[in-house]
Amino acid sequence: MKQSQLFTKTIREAPKEEQSINAKLLTRGGFVRKLMAGVYTFLPLGFKVQKKIEEIIRNEMNSVAGQEILMPALHSKKNWETTGRWKYPEMFKLKNRSDKDFSLGWTHEEIITPLVKEFINSYKDLPFYAYQIQDKFRDELRVKSGLLRGVEFLMKDLYSFHADEKDLDSYYEKMKKAYFNIFDKCGLSTKTFLTLAAGGTFSKYSHEFQTLTTSGEDEIYLCKKCKLAVNKEIIKQEKNKCPKCGNKSLSIEKAIEIGNIFQLKNKFSKVFNLNFVGKDKKEKLVFMGCYGIGLSRLMGAIVEINHDDKGIIWPKEVAPFLVHLIQVENNQKINKVAFGLYEDFQKQGIEVLYDDRQDKSAGEKFVDADLIGLPLRIVVSERTLKVNSVELKLRDKKETKLMKIKDLDKFLNNYV
Amino acid sequence: MKQSQLFTKTIREAPKEEQSINAKLLTRGGFVRKLMAGVYTFLPLGFKVQKKIEEIIRNEMNSVAGQEILMPALHSKKNWETTGRWKYPEMFKLKNRSDKDFSLGWTHEEIITPLVKEFINSYKDLPFYAYQIQDKFRDELRVKSGLLRGVEFLMKDLYSFHADEKDLDSYYEKMKKAYFNIFDKCGLSTKTFLTLAAGGTFSKYSHEFQTLTTSGEDEIYLCKKCKLAVNKEIIKQEKNKCPKCGNKSLSIEKAIEIGNIFQLKNKFSKVFNLNFVGKDKKEKLVFMGCYGIGLSRLMGAIVEINHDDKGIIWPKEVAPFLVHLIQVENNQKINKVAFGLYEDFQKQGIEVLYDDRQDKSAGEKFVDADLIGLPLRIVVSERTLKVNSVELKLRDKKETKLMKIKDLDKFLNNYV
Repeated sequence: MKQSQLFTKTIREAPKEEQSINAKLLTRGGFVRKLMAGVYTFLPLGFKVQKKIEEIIRNEMNSVAGQEILMPALHSKKNWETTGRWKYPEMFKLKNRSDKDFSLGWTHEEIITPLVKEFINSYKDLPFYAYQIQDKFRDELRVKSGLLRGVEFLMKDLYSFHADEKDLDSYYEKMKKAYFNIFDKCGLSTKTFLTLAAGGTFSKYSHEFQTLTTSGEDEIYLCKKCKLAVNKEIIKQEKNKCPKCGNKSLSIEKAIEIGNIFQLKNKFSKVFNLNFVGKDKKEKLVFMGCYGIGLSRLMGAIVEINHDDKGIIWPKEVAPFLVHLIQVENNQKINKVAFGLYEDFQKQGIEVLYDDRQDKSAGEKFVDADLIGLPLRIVVSERTLKVNSVELKLRDKKETKLMKIKDLDKFLNNYV
Repeated sequence: MKQSQLFTKTIREAPKEEQSINAKLLTRGGFVRKLMAGVYTFLPLGFKVQKKIEEIIRNEMNSVAGQEILMPALHSKKNWETTGRWKYPEMFKLKNRSDKDFSLGWTHEEIITPLVKEFINSYKDLPFYAYQIQDKFRDELRVKSGLLRGVEFLMKDLYSFHADEKDLDSYYEKMKKAYFNIFDKCGLSTKTFLTLAAGGTFSKYSHEFQTLTTSGEDEIYLCKKCKLAVNKEIIKQEKNKCPKCGNKSLSIEKAIEIGNIFQLKNKFSKVFNLNFVGKDKKEKLVFMGCYGIGLSRLMGAIVEINHDDKGIIWPKEVAPFLVHLIQVENNQKINKVAFGLYEDFQKQGIEVLYDDRQDKSAGEKFVDADLIGLPLRIVVSERTLKVNSVELKLRDKKETKLMKIKDLDKFLNNYV
């Protein structure tokens, strides 16, 4: 895409009300705009990042046999009364013109459990896994962490349905791996800990995926002896000891929860009478699991972890474009070479943002490039063309180097 | 995908409360399920159709330089009070725990106009076009037409911003073509009429895209002399004459509005002070247009237009899968050939639903295939394998024919 055609612009200062690094940088770079506390618009660059994250998650969910669906955001009171969660204070409630009660979904157990009832009769219908990537709503009291805590936010939620606990256990383990694959591609896996959390009534533990960052709203406890991480709730239960080895010197770290997985077991199938006839011809309750990732939050966390004082440093897999092609100065020769490269890259399927703006200085363009944070910067100028070259710079490295234009294709093929 | 793994099942009778053909067939085929009036879940097959429609629309919007964004569903009262539309009766309103007022978006002029203000200073910043594919909400009193009228529904809305009326006019004409490209791919163009509608305060006419169907909730008036279509409102204004040629014998047809385009001109830029400095250094108001398509409604309309008494007849471009590969009988040889074809098709990138279910008769499988409505049915059975063949049938034709397995690749390459 030509940058001259991108309708957004970068800004030097984020609005004062934005306190978090992710909101500051994403706002300054033109990725998002706040409509109100916890509610953001994704602008073209931010939308592209969101789509990349979505595709990474979709691929992983498909690889564990997830079947994609889309459930509504608008829920009926009836479903939530059945489980006794209608009173949940974070749930937005509303009425229509006929005074009927509705709520806005923040999770979908109340919708999917009755939905799948008609499709489950026998053990032969199990297991299966349904997921969606869908807009959620939570009436949060304090929202000051940009995309890390949203009032409206995109989430992937998968629900699994099993004939017995063993099958649930085995899928649960698969999902742990799938989640780490996702976080790996998002550049977060080295800072992300599988963290023991309270499991509700039926499971001993559930698991959170906690990413270490000073801007995190959570605290987790790390045992360096056995590499275990536990959340606040668990450490209280365990009286400040590691639940595995008993070690008492745990380090406390700020973290942000970017995903969670939970064995619901029979909790919801009991309430909604989600039964099946087993091999032994006896009627049994379905075992369920649920597995969430906040997409907007993930985007915020990526920025919290991957930035410097100049701007964002996008990991390759989630960058809105791979290459920032910058033309410095305007004359016929430079225009021709730069535009030629732009067309070449596109033909090769390399995503490129081409800074063709004529009213910006080289300095302004470089500042913008650092702020927007694409992985590879390629500069075409009078100086580089004198030696038939372009200047390359990786966003996460300091050095620049000249490369002959004829060698560029080979370099890019290796880099992509 | 293997049909044995699809978690949904077809049903013989739709629930009695569903009156429309689209809801009946989409429910029976396992494409959608109703949560409550006007609110549907998209099941795996329905989700795939929705995604196909989404991609068709996205490609066309990108081809007219649309930049994709995502605005929130949750809106603040302030934006809607500014335009005086807070009182709109179809808008859902709600409060948060701090008694602050919000609404759920049914359109986004109130959000995008103030949003783009900071990006428009000079005529050099114009024109540009921003669109989203996003969940909308309308508090409808009567909803009985399945996906044709939703309380919650997916919509594409594009907003265009121009320096003058001439530029708006020229983009508006481009959009008409883009819309017909979309409807063409969805199998609706021959039944769809560009229909004159009331233009609000500033334009003489806006345009609706009305598709003829007996289940339509609208009425349009067709002049066969000059091929003009007008809506009810216009025909009243024009005193039952064709506004172009004066012809009084117009035919009245039932239709469903599947899209609309509208020249907003200065209506919203005036209210939100969306100005720019022109070439002549004078301050001017931005000209705007808006262009909507309901995706869920489009899916409903496709079914209304493309079905027979046995089920849906999906146009190729929006079918959830291209091929329904059906294995009749189970023995080692049939299993091997059918599974081999399934793998072959997938390698070639041909989307295939493979009916490998062992507990269903040939008759049941054929009934399901007709109901689900994939464009091409390929049957593997003892009988066909005797002559090294499969049986082919197009969903929209009556004849079946045998084809040698070795000739199948060539046929499919031409068909796709």
